[in-house]
Amino acid sequence: MINPRLTEFRAGATGDWVIRDIRPVLGPTLPPAHALTIKPGAEPGAEISATPAAWVLHGLPSNARYTEAEEKAALLAKQEGLGRPEATCAALLPIRKTAAWWDLPQDARRRVFEAQSHHTQIGLRYLPAIARRLYHCRDLSTAEPFDFLTWFEFRPEDEPAFDHLLAELRRSPEWTYVDREVDVRLVRI
Amino acid sequence: MINPRLTEFRAGATGDWVIRDIRPVLGPTLPPAHALTIKPGAEPGAEISATPAAWVLHGLPSNARYTEAEEKAALLAKQEGLGRPEATCAALLPIRKTAAWWDLPQDARRRVFEAQSHHTQIGLRYLPAIARRLYHCRDLSTAEPFDFLTWFEFRPEDEPAFDHLLAELRRSPEWTYVDREVDVRLVRI
Repeated sequence: MINPRLTEFRAGATGDWVIRDIRPVLGPTLPPAHALTIKPGAEPGAEISATPAAWVLHGLPSNARYTEAEEKAALLAKQEGLGRPEATCAALLPIRKTAAWWDLPQDARRRVFEAQSHHTQIGLRYLPAIARRLYHCRDLSTAEPFDFLTWFEFRPEDEPAFDHLLAELRRSPEWTYVDREVDVRLVRI
Repeated sequence: MINPRLTEFRAGATGDWVIRDIRPVLGPTLPPAHALTIKPGAEPGAEISATPAAWVLHGLPSNARYTEAEEKAALLAKQEGLGRPEATCAALLPIRKTAAWWDLPQDARRRVFEAQSHHTQIGLRYLPAIARRLYHCRDLSTAEPFDFLTWFEFRPEDEPAFDHLLAELRRSPEWTYVDREVDVRLVRI
């Protein structure tokens, strides 16, 4: 039985989101594709698809690994959900982190993530414009090419702000532990 | 392709470890079985087995979620590995935690785990006698009946100490978040 949180990101000829651009950031990129479908594992037939895929990625939402109580309250107070009708732009950011990152103890990872890189504080400044969901891939039953997939939704006029958010994160100390990253930009059909 | 860390615990008529006892602790127990085989996913044919199973559980070792740098150093200095010839006794402790646990922010979970329950400090007192490996199940691609499987190995004369370790953990505040637990005792053939 499939984990109901498992989610499939299938890129191919057709899908709910048109792929505008696949931008290599670090390491091997992803093959070109026209469109993307996001299918929750809880949906029947999630594992079987007749459409041939250019690429398929899997991930699942899980518990927060670094977010502390005050940060969680601040995020909940300010964030908006996915699926807003006016948020017709999206980005899928698959990243992989190094073995050195995963070998760090929890307090060291938290220190890099927030005290040094201000990951949550940066994200908060772009709320509610940029809605976000994080999917974990590292502990799936299958060997996945990335550790995380982050899905973002925003209005077309907020794309410059989104680019600025990414630039801030990419120059943070946390990103020295990223060894593969792709930046997929999409629009809702 | 299978995650090379994925590990299968298969209970049936034959196996590398004889099951002495399956003790219900909290919630539904596991069906009776004679023996257990532990098969790393990296081994060929890990997913296919001709032997019918009484039950099969999956889990994988992952990065530490609470262990801080000082605790990691203390654990590394004192612990011994699995597979010691004299450690002919083992225990498999599958547990599941409540939705309330998983919904807690990281600092609240850490507080219950260590400041209130002294999970690492308790474990340290039983090293090196009790060797241990933790497997995570909650974020696998399949829906698993438990969140964690912990595998312990010890000498027969250390079983009373192991029972004492479990008693200490089970009366800790952390265990108020456990809603299913089974205690499987085994001996190496």
